Amino acid sequence: MVSGKRYSVIGGDLRSVKLAELIAQDGNSVNIYGFTTAGFEIKLEQSKTLAKAVVDSDVIIGPIPCSNDNEFINAPFHNESIHMNELFKAMNKNQLFLAGRISDKIAHLAQVCNVYTVDLLEREEMAVLNAIPTAEGAIQIAMEEMPITLHNSNSLILGYGRIGKILAKMLHGIGSNVYVEARKYADLAWIKSLGYSPVMLSNLSQVLKNADVIFNTIPSMVLNYELLKILNPECLIIDLASKPGGVDFSKAKELGLKAIWALSLPGKVAPVTAAGFIKDTTYNIIEELGV
Amino acid sequence: MVSGKRYSVIGGDLRSVKLAELIAQDGNSVNIYGFTTAGFEIKLEQSKTLAKAVVDSDVIIGPIPCSNDNEFINAPFHNESIHMNELFKAMNKNQLFLAGRISDKIAHLAQVCNVYTVDLLEREEMAVLNAIPTAEGAIQIAMEEMPITLHNSNSLILGYGRIGKILAKMLHGIGSNVYVEARKYADLAWIKSLGYSPVMLSNLSQVLKNADVIFNTIPSMVLNYELLKILNPECLIIDLASKPGGVDFSKAKELGLKAIWALSLPGKVAPVTAAGFIKDTTYNIIEELGV
Amino acid sequence: MVSGKRYSVIGGDLRSVKLAELIAQDGNSVNIYGFTTAGFEIKLEQSKTLAKAVVDSDVIIGPIPCSNDNEFINAPFHNESIHMNELFKAMNKNQLFLAGRISDKIAHLAQVCNVYTVDLLEREEMAVLNAIPTAEGAIQIAMEEMPITLHNSNSLILGYGRIGKILAKMLHGIGSNVYVEARKYADLAWIKSLGYSPVMLSNLSQVLKNADVIFNTIPSMVLNYELLKILNPECLIIDLASKPGGVDFSKAKELGLKAIWALSLPGKVAPVTAAGFIKDTTYNIIEELGV
Amino acid sequence: MVSGKRYSVIGGDLRSVKLAELIAQDGNSVNIYGFTTAGFEIKLEQSKTLAKAVVDSDVIIGPIPCSNDNEFINAPFHNESIHMNELFKAMNKNQLFLAGRISDKIAHLAQVCNVYTVDLLEREEMAVLNAIPTAEGAIQIAMEEMPITLHNSNSLILGYGRIGKILAKMLHGIGSNVYVEARKYADLAWIKSLGYSPVMLSNLSQVLKNADVIFNTIPSMVLNYELLKILNPECLIIDLASKPGGVDFSKAKELGLKAIWALSLPGKVAPVTAAGFIKDTTYNIIEELGV
Repeated sequence: MVSGKRYSVIGGDLRSVKLAELIAQDGNSVNIYGFTTAGFEIKLEQSKTLAKAVVDSDVIIGPIPCSNDNEFINAPFHNESIHMNELFKAMNKNQLFLAGRISDKIAHLAQVCNVYTVDLLEREEMAVLNAIPTAEGAIQIAMEEMPITLHNSNSLILGYGRIGKILAKMLHGIGSNVYVEARKYADLAWIKSLGYSPVMLSNLSQVLKNADVIFNTIPSMVLNYELLKILNPECLIIDLASKPGGVDFSKAKELGLKAIWALSLPGKVAPVTAAGFIKDTTYNIIEELGV
Repeated sequence: MVSGKRYSVIGGDLRSVKLAELIAQDGNSVNIYGFTTAGFEIKLEQSKTLAKAVVDSDVIIGPIPCSNDNEFINAPFHNESIHMNELFKAMNKNQLFLAGRISDKIAHLAQVCNVYTVDLLEREEMAVLNAIPTAEGAIQIAMEEMPITLHNSNSLILGYGRIGKILAKMLHGIGSNVYVEARKYADLAWIKSLGYSPVMLSNLSQVLKNADVIFNTIPSMVLNYELLKILNPECLIIDLASKPGGVDFSKAKELGLKAIWALSLPGKVAPVTAAGFIKDTTYNIIEELGV
Repeated sequence: MVSGKRYSVIGGDLRSVKLAELIAQDGNSVNIYGFTTAGFEIKLEQSKTLAKAVVDSDVIIGPIPCSNDNEFINAPFHNESIHMNELFKAMNKNQLFLAGRISDKIAHLAQVCNVYTVDLLEREEMAVLNAIPTAEGAIQIAMEEMPITLHNSNSLILGYGRIGKILAKMLHGIGSNVYVEARKYADLAWIKSLGYSPVMLSNLSQVLKNADVIFNTIPSMVLNYELLKILNPECLIIDLASKPGGVDFSKAKELGLKAIWALSLPGKVAPVTAAGFIKDTTYNIIEELGV
Repeated sequence: MVSGKRYSVIGGDLRSVKLAELIAQDGNSVNIYGFTTAGFEIKLEQSKTLAKAVVDSDVIIGPIPCSNDNEFINAPFHNESIHMNELFKAMNKNQLFLAGRISDKIAHLAQVCNVYTVDLLEREEMAVLNAIPTAEGAIQIAMEEMPITLHNSNSLILGYGRIGKILAKMLHGIGSNVYVEARKYADLAWIKSLGYSPVMLSNLSQVLKNADVIFNTIPSMVLNYELLKILNPECLIIDLASKPGGVDFSKAKELGLKAIWALSLPGKVAPVTAAGFIKDTTYNIIEELGV
């Protein structure tokens, strides 16, 4: 835990507010800016201007994602738009800027202004931790949509990356029969070691036929028309892959299959937990950099 | 699996329809009656009259619960009311009547008509199996209502009966820190053996203070004003106990605590799974009775 | 935790010594007697005579089991024999006597001497807790004897009592495919609920054929010649049932099957843990009786 | 599964014999050589000469490890020594040679003889699968050596590689309180995600103090005198790291600590399972190479 530092949290959604509160609870001073229209209680006082919010801080934390258009800060709870550029100009070279998904364009802007940036979403530990609320969110959707219990159902996970690993463990913990599709022999060995049923491409269609729910985590077209046709009509499809996703949604609709594209789950289903993970990652970065 | 028998399914909700379909799939003949206004597809043809539905059957399966007023069959999808009495009169003494919550009054009515009855909800295996969708339903509610993940949260289960046992296992499987309150030393030994944290009455208040979610399974006033006052204001309360429940809901509201009374979850969250459990229990009864 | 009391520990094996040390660590005074030939270090001073050991104590704890012949205290580490009778005569009616397996004869002897007794092995929580080292001991034997890993092996547990329950959980935790044979429908429902494969008598032979290891917990002849013949010759049998056991050992030998009768595992494989459980149970008894 | 091929198994321990039998069971022809003094039954006939064993085969499988001196094949069950060189000369360029730990010197020898080799131990899936018997073997040793159950004990794993991951899962499955020490933030995130207690270098000494058993998997000096001094005298140390190991054994002895260096566990504790993993890996290699 890092305490006694000065932070600014600029813009963002509920997670940013919770993040600011959590950092303050740890004994740091925290300025916040960009939440004038938030309809909920905020335990910290909002700075009057961006300049006041930023001056004197060691670390400035922007939203996740940082910006939707590479120009303005992503600030859904603010009454006026905040220029990325304006923020960077208000900062000095001893200050650190953290945010999610810092595009090349924004990174360039920061560099011009002599601002050192770290992308939170590029941090491996952040990605691992975010897989927890993502997996829970996916399970919640499955529970809401299915007329059967996950317990004793056949669930198939496509891909064995971070989300696949956590999701497999949780589904197994609830009592589902967990199948995981992977390509690499080493991944199949892991899947077997951990007590799930490994699925190779060669026996995928057999498993698809009996699946009650499919969770896709692979960000490229996996569930195409050929495979969708094999599915049981009651089978639920939940796509967790970022764009372009891994499901042919129009074909799924055509076949009468229910397919849900569930994105950005951490901020939606567990904003407070997600804020805690941003905090942990922020502290790790500070410790590594010796700020 | 018992096949080649003749069943009638009379009234009930979606579970009854699914039950009839499942029994038919196993190679039995199944008459159904009491679903004229069901807005969903039913794979079986409905009998024209109660008499036609019942005659020739070995086993007649009523709803769960059987009746809400001890007079009419619980038939939410039917356009006219069906008298319990009428059904019993249509039956003969070689036919078996199964349903849920057969009250003393209904049992008496059956006896007068020489009808042999078995209460499905009195069957131990049915109660155990129903704990599965109940636990999943409770977890779904917790996921929907909490701004944090169940993973790494502190969950407290009050009572270590059937629901408590399954719920503890599932919450643990998702990664929650599971505390279980019980009175008997043997139960506390079981809780410890299975890797949960046993909570005795004497250290209950300490655990309450740190709980993120509480699941009550004890059907008598447990969470009274004294204990509710101890809770963290963010703590979610889910009461799974049948009437009179175990939570002082008005006091909880007064204290600004979110408390949800979640009843009859199996039929709501997993009707198809619940139907399968009714089927299994029905077959067990038939095998035991040698019908 | 109960402290500030006076205890005597009389006779017994390593567990009794550890028990005495643990009770002393909790802030009680503890006299010990009956360990003159123990070849290991004992942290407490031994009383010179039985009378000195017993006088002034609130609770006297005998061995588990109490006696092997209903006459002398089970004291394998003592240079002379200690009469049960002698002990009871040295006690007064305000003192409590705890020990394991207090036979009718010994109970009668105690009654004559006005000594109040409680059998530790009759306590439900003690039996539950003892199932933990029993299960671990059984797993240790299986690991030692089998040329394959328990992970991914087929393990069959006969009986779903205390040991069956803990063993199933641990084997599942290691990654074994766990089958549990039980008779009652409710037990089969529990087995299914908890993620093991329920085995009914009717499909037992199929499961036996593929078993890599069988753990019997039923204290009556289960694995008779008929069933033993079905087994794979490599299958290991571990009988955990107390006398008369549940395996026809001579037939097993005849068939070239390896069968091990593993009794009294807690004291053998985890004496310190077992001592802790005796302590916990002792404290529970004292609290209940208000000694 | 690959069938209809011709294999030779040359030298090695019990695993090599089992491997040959398993491959034959899958419908392949298998020659074996180098087991004349094996004291157990072998289901396959041994070839008379090395040349006869090797000629006509598609794949030749040597021991794990291949050789102990870079000159002779590791053949503990053979009455005369077999030159690596002699084997390679007997092979032709269309044959594939698989074995474990093919040193640079042996690889060079093979190259000179135009023999294509693959090191089984370099295969990622083999290393993952071997972690299963290694973890079980480590658990068996812990059970044998400790006077307490693993259940509810504090176990500390140093390192979170393949063995650390499987071991953590199994220990957790038995009910141990599992602590895992790792350096990388991402690994610590994984450890937390999966429900174990992450241990950073900064709080290692606190955890060491309360550990009942320590499993080291890091192949460099970790448990030095400074850290060993912190340990509880009852704490058991099991070093699973290959040479040079991670424990200062002489200092451990000096401090009266029990430390066991457990190497090559798969072949020792579960030779049949280990043979199955070699078979799986062999088939994977063949499929990849299209032999």
